[in-house]
Amino acid sequence: MFEFSVAASSGAARAGTLTLPHGTVDTPCFMPVGTQGTVRALSPADLKSVGAQIVLANTYHLHVRPGEDVVAKLGRLHRFMAWDRPLLTDSGGFQVFSLASFRRVDEDGVEFTSHVDGAKRYFTPERATEIQWTLGADIAMAFDHVVPGGADLATATSRDALERTLRWLDRCAKRHRELTKGDGRTERRKGVDREGTAQSSTPFRPSVIPSQFQTLWPILQGGVHPALRREGLRRILDVGSWTGLAIGGLSVGETKPLMYQILETIEPALPRALPRYLMGVGFPEDLVAAVERGMDLFDCVAPTRNGRNGSAYTPDGPVNIRNAGFREDAGPLDPACDCETCREYSRGYLRHLFAADELLGLRLLSLHNVRFLIRLAGAMRAAIRTDDFPRWAADWRRRYTRTDAT
Amino acid sequence: MFEFSVAASSGAARAGTLTLPHGTVDTPCFMPVGTQGTVRALSPADLKSVGAQIVLANTYHLHVRPGEDVVAKLGRLHRFMAWDRPLLTDSGGFQVFSLASFRRVDEDGVEFTSHVDGAKRYFTPERATEIQWTLGADIAMAFDHVVPGGADLATATSRDALERTLRWLDRCAKRHRELTKGDGRTERRKGVDREGTAQSSTPFRPSVIPSQFQTLWPILQGGVHPALRREGLRRILDVGSWTGLAIGGLSVGETKPLMYQILETIEPALPRALPRYLMGVGFPEDLVAAVERGMDLFDCVAPTRNGRNGSAYTPDGPVNIRNAGFREDAGPLDPACDCETCREYSRGYLRHLFAADELLGLRLLSLHNVRFLIRLAGAMRAAIRTDDFPRWAADWRRRYTRTDAT
Repeated sequence: MFEFSVAASSGAARAGTLTLPHGTVDTPCFMPVGTQGTVRALSPADLKSVGAQIVLANTYHLHVRPGEDVVAKLGRLHRFMAWDRPLLTDSGGFQVFSLASFRRVDEDGVEFTSHVDGAKRYFTPERATEIQWTLGADIAMAFDHVVPGGADLATATSRDALERTLRWLDRCAKRHRELTKGDGRTERRKGVDREGTAQSSTPFRPSVIPSQFQTLWPILQGGVHPALRREGLRRILDVGSWTGLAIGGLSVGETKPLMYQILETIEPALPRALPRYLMGVGFPEDLVAAVERGMDLFDCVAPTRNGRNGSAYTPDGPVNIRNAGFREDAGPLDPACDCETCREYSRGYLRHLFAADELLGLRLLSLHNVRFLIRLAGAMRAAIRTDDFPRWAADWRRRYTRTDAT
Repeated sequence: MFEFSVAASSGAARAGTLTLPHGTVDTPCFMPVGTQGTVRALSPADLKSVGAQIVLANTYHLHVRPGEDVVAKLGRLHRFMAWDRPLLTDSGGFQVFSLASFRRVDEDGVEFTSHVDGAKRYFTPERATEIQWTLGADIAMAFDHVVPGGADLATATSRDALERTLRWLDRCAKRHRELTKGDGRTERRKGVDREGTAQSSTPFRPSVIPSQFQTLWPILQGGVHPALRREGLRRILDVGSWTGLAIGGLSVGETKPLMYQILETIEPALPRALPRYLMGVGFPEDLVAAVERGMDLFDCVAPTRNGRNGSAYTPDGPVNIRNAGFREDAGPLDPACDCETCREYSRGYLRHLFAADELLGLRLLSLHNVRFLIRLAGAMRAAIRTDDFPRWAADWRRRYTRTDAT
């Protein structure tokens, strides 16, 4: 369980297989994002029809609504959202620092105000680990101290955040080990059960949970500072052995060349045996560039969010289906695509759905965009297996970034 | 083609089969409404999964956006919306009188202002027939003069509307015969191609249309006046032979006992050999009452509209999935139902989707509600075939209208 094997490589790009309790995941792999326990506008059957192997859900959102205890009572996250393939939950760190409207951070954790009901909540590394344990995804993420706006901040600030993230990683790992061993006693830690918080009425009671159903991955922070990234990586690997490693704090506003440079800086030091999850990435061109730089797993809301806005990926770059030019276009959205949207409907009909504000349009473009990224990952795997990735990537990029696309 | 056979009856209730160019329809039958060429939140695959045999689309909406010429260029309505089973288009009459913000009615037709772009449009019986011919549904409806607010208006007003509807029916039938015979010349009728209207730039050119692909049904009006209804029916039947008959102007605000009384008044005079389509009905209890009174076909936006509002039909009456009582409810929405929603998801999850404003919730409840009405029609067919309809209906009604339901 939680095994990863690299089957082929081409340059820094790798093709591998990750084995998880709910199934295997072929890498490179794009994970659709099911923020609130549903990939927006898509059903599990839709996701299977486009070949999704693993879905990401957001701990922060599910904690705030409906609450992890409700999810547990409804059979944990897989049963809750009727998805029987692998799941990954993030730790809530990113949302606590980006969505919650009030925050007070100290060494113990983060107090924040829920964006849904204004209630005060408190996350600590232990609590984020417990919540994810209760949700029950195959992969849980360590709770990290995110530096808002990352790229612009000074090295000193980033270093503080990194140091705290590393201390919190220790605490997450310790709590996850306890939970895995079945030692689920609730410690009365400072702040965890503060009176007046939602948590105080629902003490954490892990039970009837099979061991080894979940693994915990650390998140490498360090902003755009190569030295911090290298040091962070070294120390994460010192903490213990891991089954995977995430790279956070990128794709948060820095330039693309800078993101690529950071990846190139750290890639040689990454253990070859671990799957590498580049968080929050991304757009098709980012996926290709990141795979080129040794990354394996990706998540991003872009395919569904852009789809809902009428923007569709095609091999010739994105198109906006609202364009008047599609009004009488009887051709498929993307002639090379095999998804339901491209098999069944014309561009003209899809444009009509958006012009008429019809819900089916949101679904069909989301479906296509997710399929596009999953097919893209498949094409990358194939190119890696034939050790042809650099040439494939150059060809793909030339076509995708052509400026004469519709 | 366009044949209808009654296979069984039980009291006034009938079970039959309607044969149309795109397939057969078992009656009693509920038709989901695809107002703008899509049943809101559902795909054709969804509709097939719940057993939909025929879908209704709205001529007024499709004329205003994207325009029947665009639909024709995209392969006519079946291809446009990727629905290969039977389709019915209404004539636009109901919407012209209910949605358009400005109207001027004269003997020739109706001038109105589009609710979408404010453009002036002109519908005549001939034009409504031509538009429906261009859309290409299996069944087209005659353009009728709808009396807004029907039930409250005086007999004299209703008589005027009825007389005009009958004169318009003649014109629709004449135009439809011409089109069927391939005689598609555009006559410069008064008003049809007025300058400044959208139509003037797109003269009607029927071509490459197979004959006998579409039939035209008359609409019986007459409000809540039994004498007008009886007279209207007699004169409709005098106009010519028909393959079906619609009853309009009910379920528009009158009381249910009054609607049932009108149906009972006219039912004995309805030709047994024609399918009877009760327009805009309805709610589950209305379907049962109307089948009891000899009706065969129904359409209504309620199952999808209510579904999008979180209201779900169950054998014990409607429930609102937002109810707090469903928060931790691991059971299916309707244990007796076989739809995806009831097979795959818990009430607690469905409630979460609505609480979190997730699009999947809109789809899943729409899907279930449509399935509920289609299963209801199937149960009625079965009861009719065993000549057990009166007892079945009483049992069904007792359970559905119980006041102690959740």
